[in-house]
Amino acid sequence: MNLEQLRKNKKIAILSPVAWRTPPRQYGAWETVASNITEGLVDRGWDVTLFATADSITQANLHAVIDKGYEEDPSQEAKVVECLQISEMMEHAEQFDLIHNNYDFLPLSYTRLIDTPMLTTIHGFSSDNIRRVYRKYKHDSYYTSISDSDRDPELPYLATVYNGIDLSNLTVGDTRGGKLVFLGRIHPDKGVHLACETAKKSGMDLIIAGIIQDERYFNEKVKPYIDDKHITYIGPVGPPERDALFKQAYALLHLNELPERFGLVMAEANGAGVPVIAYDRGSCREVVADGETGFLVTNVTESVEAVKKIDTIDPTACRRRVDECFSIPTMVKAYEKVYAEIFRLEDQKS
Amino acid sequence: MNLEQLRKNKKIAILSPVAWRTPPRQYGAWETVASNITEGLVDRGWDVTLFATADSITQANLHAVIDKGYEEDPSQEAKVVECLQISEMMEHAEQFDLIHNNYDFLPLSYTRLIDTPMLTTIHGFSSDNIRRVYRKYKHDSYYTSISDSDRDPELPYLATVYNGIDLSNLTVGDTRGGKLVFLGRIHPDKGVHLACETAKKSGMDLIIAGIIQDERYFNEKVKPYIDDKHITYIGPVGPPERDALFKQAYALLHLNELPERFGLVMAEANGAGVPVIAYDRGSCREVVADGETGFLVTNVTESVEAVKKIDTIDPTACRRRVDECFSIPTMVKAYEKVYAEIFRLEDQKS
Repeated sequence: MNLEQLRKNKKIAILSPVAWRTPPRQYGAWETVASNITEGLVDRGWDVTLFATADSITQANLHAVIDKGYEEDPSQEAKVVECLQISEMMEHAEQFDLIHNNYDFLPLSYTRLIDTPMLTTIHGFSSDNIRRVYRKYKHDSYYTSISDSDRDPELPYLATVYNGIDLSNLTVGDTRGGKLVFLGRIHPDKGVHLACETAKKSGMDLIIAGIIQDERYFNEKVKPYIDDKHITYIGPVGPPERDALFKQAYALLHLNELPERFGLVMAEANGAGVPVIAYDRGSCREVVADGETGFLVTNVTESVEAVKKIDTIDPTACRRRVDECFSIPTMVKAYEKVYAEIFRLEDQKS
Repeated sequence: MNLEQLRKNKKIAILSPVAWRTPPRQYGAWETVASNITEGLVDRGWDVTLFATADSITQANLHAVIDKGYEEDPSQEAKVVECLQISEMMEHAEQFDLIHNNYDFLPLSYTRLIDTPMLTTIHGFSSDNIRRVYRKYKHDSYYTSISDSDRDPELPYLATVYNGIDLSNLTVGDTRGGKLVFLGRIHPDKGVHLACETAKKSGMDLIIAGIIQDERYFNEKVKPYIDDKHITYIGPVGPPERDALFKQAYALLHLNELPERFGLVMAEANGAGVPVIAYDRGSCREVVADGETGFLVTNVTESVEAVKKIDTIDPTACRRRVDECFSIPTMVKAYEKVYAEIFRLEDQKS
């Protein structure tokens, strides 16, 4: 079957996590991607059922047994809600031609008990322990990575599919903003204190936005920099408000100390025409085109140097690259190719 | 088929948790019961496969994918190990005629994907949230309770099967010991401080044994009583050393503040001829025969009164009741009846 025929004949189930609503109100990277895949597939004519929380918003068919995300309703227990969400999907597996799992490793443990092929987007290895599950089930689920750098050498992958972001709420301003911006979880891995150092040494203002995931780190390493004048913390910022934040941005600082798996926020900033200064670790060199949409650096000194060169980065070039590489249609077209390949491989088996 | 035929023709899988070895070295109540069921069934001629950690000890066939209990090897991650243990069992379900699940609620979420009937012994509701899983799968797994008191009114049960304990290492001494004994996890639910109060007010010595599960509770509420003379803490005591401990016991204090689900340790003490003074909550009145194998009390004053009356309890009567009601053969015979009933019900279906 060609793509047009597949779209008409195949039923797709998208399995989203239930930590947050799909799409999430604010933080929730996997739910965001699951939402973008779902809506993008519907836009391209696929018959899609989204397995997500009952308060989720989608054009697809919504199948829900969990009312609210367990991170949004502390009366729930993650372990209970997770097994109910995943088993519900598996119990309906035969209604679908393909399951696209965006829910980490647990669903893999059900795959040998169902007949429907499953694609698992590996959104990241949260610990080395979970690699064992991916390895056991490497012939039971197809895998895609979200960047070339975030691959396990012992796993087979069908493709790398970069995350696609919703560009409808992101616009390139007429003028460059004047402040440095950090946007992400406040956590030691994210190098928020390095962003503060860069701002100090550059003599520029910095806006810090994001949920505080590590209170101690925030209090000890970030708070001392905050003076509510030059360096401010504004709390979490949901997707709709990001454009306004990016309008104020001279550059996004993404000085992650741990290798990035993909780095949605870098694509978002570029999508709003904002250059990105990123530590050259993990996927950053795949997302940021060095010298074209931002700069890759290895320490704060280089980060300060990069701030001085920001004028050489053209905001429209940033946006153009995101349109080409990290838009929802680009991602969905890539997944369509992967789906087609899976259907071809499955046909060969039978 | 009668029981003799079932024993010859049916293959049983026992699913044990992998928090600890089966049987556990020290603490690990569910692994203890799973071991007792397994060995008891083998003794009675059943073909049994035990799914447990690789270092487990059994006369049955051992099927293991997890080397060590995750509580004994901190490099492991419970969530990973749990799903691998359970899925391994499910992937081999068709090799068995009955799965006996001693692994809480997670295995239920796989049951609609397999054809083999499953019996789940509900060892307790660790939180209200997990009831939801038991309710969803109430027609997919058969249930037994471990006491009449530990039942959820919305669930159907085939029977209550009391836990059976290994009596081979427990002997009734010629003379009564002289000390009060607490044996269990050091945790607020377990009322260790009430045992201390009872000892103080009775003017009797107390030996406290068990793992410290709540360090703060131990330090604040228990440690102040410990003088290493009248009240001593001796750490955890494995099953083999319990008989020696019970030889020193005048009575076991079991002043649990939370309703007990079953209370293995009460049966163990009685099995060594030691009377039990227990708070009258949950299953305690099913395990302890008031005035015959110990006393049920509702506060420390009554507990102190009960200590004075211990002479009226006959150690051999304690042992006799345990032989009759809480021995491994008694438990296994009860499970045989349940298995036979399940096979009968399954035959009716097909």
